[in-house]
Amino acid sequence: MIINIEWADDSLKIIDQTKLPGKLTIRKLSCVEEVFEAIGKLRVRGAPALGIAGAFGLYLGLRNKRPTSRQNFLIQARSIASYLSESRPTAVNLQWALQEILDSISRSKKSNPEHLLNLVLEQAKLLLQDDINRCENISKHGIDLFKHRLTVLTHCNTGALATAGMGTALGIIFNAAQQGKIDKVLVDETRPLLQGARLTMWELDYHKIPAVLISDNMAAYAMQREMVDMVLVGADRIAANGDVANKIGTYSLAVLAEHHGIPFYVAAPLSTFDHSVPSGEFIPIEERDPSEITRIWNKLEISVPGAKSWNPAFDVTPAKFVSGIITEQGILFPPFEKSIKQLNYQVYQNQEELK
Amino acid sequence: MIINIEWADDSLKIIDQTKLPGKLTIRKLSCVEEVFEAIGKLRVRGAPALGIAGAFGLYLGLRNKRPTSRQNFLIQARSIASYLSESRPTAVNLQWALQEILDSISRSKKSNPEHLLNLVLEQAKLLLQDDINRCENISKHGIDLFKHRLTVLTHCNTGALATAGMGTALGIIFNAAQQGKIDKVLVDETRPLLQGARLTMWELDYHKIPAVLISDNMAAYAMQREMVDMVLVGADRIAANGDVANKIGTYSLAVLAEHHGIPFYVAAPLSTFDHSVPSGEFIPIEERDPSEITRIWNKLEISVPGAKSWNPAFDVTPAKFVSGIITEQGILFPPFEKSIKQLNYQVYQNQEELK
Repeated sequence: MIINIEWADDSLKIIDQTKLPGKLTIRKLSCVEEVFEAIGKLRVRGAPALGIAGAFGLYLGLRNKRPTSRQNFLIQARSIASYLSESRPTAVNLQWALQEILDSISRSKKSNPEHLLNLVLEQAKLLLQDDINRCENISKHGIDLFKHRLTVLTHCNTGALATAGMGTALGIIFNAAQQGKIDKVLVDETRPLLQGARLTMWELDYHKIPAVLISDNMAAYAMQREMVDMVLVGADRIAANGDVANKIGTYSLAVLAEHHGIPFYVAAPLSTFDHSVPSGEFIPIEERDPSEITRIWNKLEISVPGAKSWNPAFDVTPAKFVSGIITEQGILFPPFEKSIKQLNYQVYQNQEELK
Repeated sequence: MIINIEWADDSLKIIDQTKLPGKLTIRKLSCVEEVFEAIGKLRVRGAPALGIAGAFGLYLGLRNKRPTSRQNFLIQARSIASYLSESRPTAVNLQWALQEILDSISRSKKSNPEHLLNLVLEQAKLLLQDDINRCENISKHGIDLFKHRLTVLTHCNTGALATAGMGTALGIIFNAAQQGKIDKVLVDETRPLLQGARLTMWELDYHKIPAVLISDNMAAYAMQREMVDMVLVGADRIAANGDVANKIGTYSLAVLAEHHGIPFYVAAPLSTFDHSVPSGEFIPIEERDPSEITRIWNKLEISVPGAKSWNPAFDVTPAKFVSGIITEQGILFPPFEKSIKQLNYQVYQNQEELK
């Protein structure tokens, strides 16, 4: 099993994803500055993993600062959280996890800084365990979609390397493979950052699951040739009506899947649903550095000097293209406005116990 | 103007495409071995350009061999043609051009080897001039599609670098730009070999036409955001019913264009139509070395060691997705079975005069 992120020997241990797929390197982070660096340099990535790394980073920062009073503790915590947020300003999950912990220490009645420090550590551990559980439950529900052996096409990386657990969409694939329900996985390379080629291929190789890498523009032809039984992807944010924001290229797959009569499923934990957003058109789409298009991994220049490029990091797939959304509470089917409303939100079941 | 391939100073001069987009290098080829090397190493590429390079290669080979009789000339010609075919065994146009010249010297009544040698040179020059004329006529007809300023999305390279003239699909874009009818060009990078990023971006930059490079998987999102008015691509082979074989990723664009109500046009000279093939399902699709997917330009390893990949070089777009085909004789519209049949084939208008 791949353990992407864990708390051991009083420090945070992560798989350094910048070394993949070449080498499996575990990096030990013992202070907040190391966590900041690891997030900023994309050594750790993926929405759930970023939140967890941030939470432990906050703990490491506070531990080293040794605040002497409750008031001083709260001031320090806010300052460290604000510092950590800057490591990847657009990572919503990172900000969210840090805010969750800040809120919970504000609410706590404890005055002893040592007790507050313990509370932060317990919260971070809870986030981690919670993510493991959610991934496992998603994978258990997802297996219901595999009536027989299937070839699944996936995009980007939604596995252990994006979470603290077994992953979301890729977690389902692991579970299905263990039960003999995977013929093979077609893996979109996922330009520009090639997370499919680099990370998903690495995870599938690690688990010895048959995988075939393709360029993103080959998916349609594979569908035309009836080589794809199901498209299964993750999500970065899901609107109240079921519109799905996910890695650029997802919308393309959704339209192509519909055209070829292939089911298109999304796997995502409840934390991905954003009820404040009625539909996808209100989800802001991050546009990243155009040089990610023109210089692959900042290494290989592929176009003319000064070439203009456009680099939207995500796109939005309208709910009408989505066959179902697999969550830790079960599979949601259309109409999503209704099925999403019926979800039972218990994001931190044990949170109250900690206060 | 970009001159990709020309006959000057008794030798063949080509733009060395392996040096692009970094540097514009003209390479002088003075013997058949240099032509063989240039084709094999992809210094010259693109269906029409390959045929022309092969034709001049045959001349250069024969010139250096100095055959002493008609019979000896024919034997040498067949042997050199067979050698040149091996430089890129799957390039249909190369084989076709060589065969055309072999046929024409077989048919010729000339017995003097010097006269036969001149015939080969004249034929090669005719092929070159013919391609220039065809490109120009395609671009003139294509302009009819531009009722107002458009943003055009294109794929792969279909410009001067693929032909001896101004190109096919890109030739139309050049012509439209000169008439103020191009707002900008969205350029698919065209994985795996990145001809869009490398060659099309270079040509557009050379002509100062506004161009924006995108990853192939961004085309759908650009269409969803109404950033694309027309898709315009080339073709490698067109079946009698109008099905179009072209660079992998073309079919994906065709399905996406239809879904978004965007016209999808193909530009191709008459030599691209293959009447022996009733429909696309009979067009064999070359599968190239899987390492083109896993190692970009044989330089940058993007996946796990031993990763499996699939690398179809082309796909087939069914005729029902094609809004029109722009040829040197005008624009063909559906039903293509009928409009293709009505084409007037005069592939070498001056051929008879040469005999």
